[in-house]
Amino acid sequence: MTDAGRLALRVAYLGGGFSGWQRQAAGRTVQGELERALSALFATPVRVVGAGRTDAGVHADGQVAHFDAPLPIPPAGVAAALASSLPVGVRVLRVWRAAAGFDARRDAAGKRYRYRLAWGIRLGPWEALRRWEAPGRLDPAPMAAALAALVGEHDFAAFALSGHAGHGARGTTRTVTRARLLRRGRRLDVVVEGDGFLRGMVRRIAGALVEVGRGARDPAWVAALLADARTRPPAPSAPPHGLTLERVFYRPPAGG
Amino acid sequence: MTDAGRLALRVAYLGGGFSGWQRQAAGRTVQGELERALSALFATPVRVVGAGRTDAGVHADGQVAHFDAPLPIPPAGVAAALASSLPVGVRVLRVWRAAAGFDARRDAAGKRYRYRLAWGIRLGPWEALRRWEAPGRLDPAPMAAALAALVGEHDFAAFALSGHAGHGARGTTRTVTRARLLRRGRRLDVVVEGDGFLRGMVRRIAGALVEVGRGARDPAWVAALLADARTRPPAPSAPPHGLTLERVFYRPPAGG
Repeated sequence: MTDAGRLALRVAYLGGGFSGWQRQAAGRTVQGELERALSALFATPVRVVGAGRTDAGVHADGQVAHFDAPLPIPPAGVAAALASSLPVGVRVLRVWRAAAGFDARRDAAGKRYRYRLAWGIRLGPWEALRRWEAPGRLDPAPMAAALAALVGEHDFAAFALSGHAGHGARGTTRTVTRARLLRRGRRLDVVVEGDGFLRGMVRRIAGALVEVGRGARDPAWVAALLADARTRPPAPSAPPHGLTLERVFYRPPAGG
Repeated sequence: MTDAGRLALRVAYLGGGFSGWQRQAAGRTVQGELERALSALFATPVRVVGAGRTDAGVHADGQVAHFDAPLPIPPAGVAAALASSLPVGVRVLRVWRAAAGFDARRDAAGKRYRYRLAWGIRLGPWEALRRWEAPGRLDPAPMAAALAALVGEHDFAAFALSGHAGHGARGTTRTVTRARLLRRGRRLDVVVEGDGFLRGMVRRIAGALVEVGRGARDPAWVAALLADARTRPPAPSAPPHGLTLERVFYRPPAGG
């Protein structure tokens, strides 16, 4: 089959109803729903490649994906068709023509995640869909200090779901390029950008910050987790519903 | 059984998963879920009375309800028990001791509803749970003029789900005490307060405003619907998911 062109998608979803991004044999996934809708539209199997996998319960505002359209349908037509065929909770925000070689996963230069926290307040059900009501009272000042220690290139094995195992040639070293703690009353957003993230890494960062914020650990403990990942138990993990993949960054296409 | 005291609840819910507030023989309702959870807690049937019924798909930030506790459990204990036994989408924000004669429905002096609209933007799935993406482009200025005409005491039969039928002694006359149109970019919130609302009334107000906003009707049409409700077709209804019961107002208890 001749491809009629590579298209890219910006996808937002609420993680609650899905077993994560990645297609599985059983269980409803975001990739699976997109492939089902696109395959029905084109009446032929379509495979979708996402920039990153998100775990069950994790949300996205700006997941990016690509697929090869078997027919030359304009991007707006694809967007309209998907708007009426995707389940509640998955929305394609934008469809555009990508360069022939564009690969949503391989070309991703970085990502931004946001972990939403609250403490000492009872959230309404709408907000509680994507913000974690942490136990205890949180003191943002030591949390900010701990977060600052994470910026830069480090071995994040203590923040990986599976420690050092199964990380291939790249290992568990990643670079966090920017980290911010945004406060509004008793709500805190932990916003982290980096060149890549280990599976479970942002949830363990949020979990570690909550330990510091409630006074169970001091900020130096977070720095020690980075320095001494192989001998220490990993940081605790915060629940998935507080986490949102906010944006995927791509380098501008090379000229020529 | 001697009642151990009347308790009041502030309840918030996402309408999407429910067949409205009111208990039904079949279908999951918010009242039904609260009664199920409270009956399990006290191991005896408990009946809950809400300030107002909301239709299927309509949300609440501040529904108020009362019930008679069969045992002298403190309000905080009831709140904790409900937090762990209600389904996702229903949250009891506050529990307090009410005066013996307090009746959440009969004593309600007024309510505030908010209808959330957007146009010309593609909302993410989280926001789209409770904001309607209206067709066309909306011009807020004539919508504000039409909304202002609704303030005061009027026969709102043209905004009732069932016209004049079945409204009892009070008929279809209600007083809208305050109405505001709040704009943020391409998002509009229609906020309406009144002494009471007919079934479907705020959704028809929002539906009528959208007709005006997209230029299909002029503001005088809304005033004519009030003046001449018995002979005109009713205003169109906006979908339920844009509507939230925000607050129920009570008069301060009389002294003495």
